Amino acid sequence: MSTYPNAAATTVSDCADPACTAPLPVLGRDVTVPLVTGGEVTYAALDYAASAPALQRVWDDVAAYAPYYGSVHRGAGYLSQLSTDLFEQSRATVAEFLDCRPSDQVIFTRSTTDSLNLLAAALPAGCQVFVFETEHHASLLPWGDAQVTYLDAPRTPAQAVEILERALAGRDPQGPALVCVTGASNVTGELWPVKELAAAAHAHGARIVLDAAQLAPHHPVSVQELDVDWVAFSGHKLYAPFGSGVLAGRADWLQQAEPYLAGGGASRKVARREDGGVDVEWHTTAARHEAGSPNVIGVYSIASACKALAEAGFEDLVARERHLIAKVRAGLAQVPAVRILSLFGDDAPRVGVISFVVEGWNSSHFAAALSAEYGIGVRDGLFCAHPLVRTLLGSEPQAQGECGAPEAAPGDLSLNAIRVSFGAGTPDEHVDRFVGAVRELVSSGAKWQYRTEDGRCVPAV
Amino acid sequence: MSTYPNAAATTVSDCADPACTAPLPVLGRDVTVPLVTGGEVTYAALDYAASAPALQRVWDDVAAYAPYYGSVHRGAGYLSQLSTDLFEQSRATVAEFLDCRPSDQVIFTRSTTDSLNLLAAALPAGCQVFVFETEHHASLLPWGDAQVTYLDAPRTPAQAVEILERALAGRDPQGPALVCVTGASNVTGELWPVKELAAAAHAHGARIVLDAAQLAPHHPVSVQELDVDWVAFSGHKLYAPFGSGVLAGRADWLQQAEPYLAGGGASRKVARREDGGVDVEWHTTAARHEAGSPNVIGVYSIASACKALAEAGFEDLVARERHLIAKVRAGLAQVPAVRILSLFGDDAPRVGVISFVVEGWNSSHFAAALSAEYGIGVRDGLFCAHPLVRTLLGSEPQAQGECGAPEAAPGDLSLNAIRVSFGAGTPDEHVDRFVGAVRELVSSGAKWQYRTEDGRCVPAV
Repeated sequence: MSTYPNAAATTVSDCADPACTAPLPVLGRDVTVPLVTGGEVTYAALDYAASAPALQRVWDDVAAYAPYYGSVHRGAGYLSQLSTDLFEQSRATVAEFLDCRPSDQVIFTRSTTDSLNLLAAALPAGCQVFVFETEHHASLLPWGDAQVTYLDAPRTPAQAVEILERALAGRDPQGPALVCVTGASNVTGELWPVKELAAAAHAHGARIVLDAAQLAPHHPVSVQELDVDWVAFSGHKLYAPFGSGVLAGRADWLQQAEPYLAGGGASRKVARREDGGVDVEWHTTAARHEAGSPNVIGVYSIASACKALAEAGFEDLVARERHLIAKVRAGLAQVPAVRILSLFGDDAPRVGVISFVVEGWNSSHFAAALSAEYGIGVRDGLFCAHPLVRTLLGSEPQAQGECGAPEAAPGDLSLNAIRVSFGAGTPDEHVDRFVGAVRELVSSGAKWQYRTEDGRCVPAV
Repeated sequence: MSTYPNAAATTVSDCADPACTAPLPVLGRDVTVPLVTGGEVTYAALDYAASAPALQRVWDDVAAYAPYYGSVHRGAGYLSQLSTDLFEQSRATVAEFLDCRPSDQVIFTRSTTDSLNLLAAALPAGCQVFVFETEHHASLLPWGDAQVTYLDAPRTPAQAVEILERALAGRDPQGPALVCVTGASNVTGELWPVKELAAAAHAHGARIVLDAAQLAPHHPVSVQELDVDWVAFSGHKLYAPFGSGVLAGRADWLQQAEPYLAGGGASRKVARREDGGVDVEWHTTAARHEAGSPNVIGVYSIASACKALAEAGFEDLVARERHLIAKVRAGLAQVPAVRILSLFGDDAPRVGVISFVVEGWNSSHFAAALSAEYGIGVRDGLFCAHPLVRTLLGSEPQAQGECGAPEAAPGDLSLNAIRVSFGAGTPDEHVDRFVGAVRELVSSGAKWQYRTEDGRCVPAV
């Protein structure tokens, strides 16, 4: 019995029949794109780990609501009250989706990055932070001036727990501490032993935040079962790309912290003092950290996605995704030039995120050829997880462009990698096309030349 | 010749024919809502100052783009590159809309509140801040630990300039200073003498940020003509309620500041050091303050709104709005029980935002009756501008609910006010219905009883 984040999910049997469940309908499933070799093809969106297409259901819900849009928490009109109800019901839906404790707060942010920056701003004085160097930048960098201990990359899930235990053992157990860990790597797709890490953290008087950006779209996340203190995720990776994210968990640190943004909505009472200054009394509810008019559509879209995924059933979604993962891995295994990046090895449970390099190929050119010659959208670069990818590639740090390819045209296999990722909306045809394209590019070469222009790798026409 | 923010706008003649320009089509224009007295009526959205409905054009643009959504700055695929282009073109569109200097940066945030919190986080060490107590909380509160001087409420635009001049004269001219001023009050709708305040600020070596949350939806804003250093506004008040906002202006302070959020997208290079720590090299472009996956739909919706307003022509929009303002003010003037809240008096140029109290009425009950008996959505409360509204009402500070009505059921005229606001999507019928409803409520009373329940004023059924 696995004890990874979702024991249930990892014990689901593989899908015997590839058509056992259909992909969920997403926007853009019929979009065609031009090929540099002539003609058009339906676009294969295989960059879900960066951002996923909207579920059709999410779009339909947003479109149905949009005419009823009104200001939230602020208006006497019917649509304002309807919108306020929708907004607060969305909070309850997210709490249910995450299986939160009744006392937890659900705060709406703009993204996982924003959620973790909020938590970083809410750390008690003197809080120590423990974070693996393998985290993506959203969970690696927000801790700023706090006393951060960066933990070396483990090579097994058990080693991750050992490394954390060792680091925590050395600290003063009286002071506050936070462990930040990702549930599923945005580079390798591998699941981390969240429940065990949470137990280790709590045994040493530390708290833990789960970065579920890559986990929540693929697996059920239970705050109570994993016993994590907070969880963060983004709408745009959860098939709801409308600008909102979530931080959910324990209220105490959040209630005691300065408001994340200062402004209306967060303030209960503002008054000038006799001495000319201004006194502010802040809310202690989620509103404390949600100053400004909320992004009602973004928030509602997340709730819609939570409902759609729950109704589709994670058991079926996980089974189908494992089927797709197996197809891609089996396909890539037949191409000896391909090396898959992995921390935990072939047998590790994982989500549909696979990074690799191809011997003899510049990764940016390879990704560009997949797009221009096959209509397949993947990502090349370091995936906003520079230390991890550098460790896996065994290469030296380089300055990067916009979170992607190196700025100088790369000719070195070790400079960056290619990532293919998929999810609930991915049909078999997309991964089949991808596997076929990799095989063909490696065996026959690209049909076109590629060069870097304005930081982008493009066909050299 | 007026020297208010938009000299051109204030010299446009009133619309002789009420039908001279039609309202711009907005979502929700056909939505009907139930009346407590029976039957249904089309909803009159008269709370634009809180949040405006989406322009139909904006919705259509978003709907047309949504199937082409892809990750921005991060993907090798066709839709990622298309989305990146759309995102960066949107930046250029906003720069053009605001008539920015070529060297200015346009940074996408989530709202005006967020924009001003970003600027507050970017202030140089020792920066003094000067802000009128009449600002709404988004511009009053973000300045935190900076040395803030709160300026008393002026009673004329000229007095505003005098007060600022006097305050600035006392400061050390060598140190950095920032003046923050709203372009149009979210309580009185009155325009502030932005150009004159900017000249005063600059004459004393200070910089100025224009809070254009209420100005930009109603008037053209020229950064260069007004000579302001920064401007902030929200998409959701500019008919683009998709969770994005803007801070545009001088790059230097922003480039020198710590990144607003720490995470991917803002970082150029991240590497572990020999001593176990982590080194980060940050971008100096707008990306520095835009960590995390951008809200592409939110940003594109703002660009779409900017284009739609520019194409409709501010001259016509302003003329039509002045016609609506005149109607409302003439109508309210015929009801002696109504007192309009004003700093600058009847002749001040203004946008379509009017706050008032009604003698003998509890403002919350009045607003509730407008909604329940007439299908009109206005706002009651203190409008996230507590000190200003208290000054105008001549009353004492009270703790407020969610930025709205006092928590205890109010029976005192001085506790809060009613605000009616409108804009480019408002048909004459809405303001006519509003004026008729005010007249009827005052002369005949409400048909129903109202009470406060869960912080909301509702029909007592």
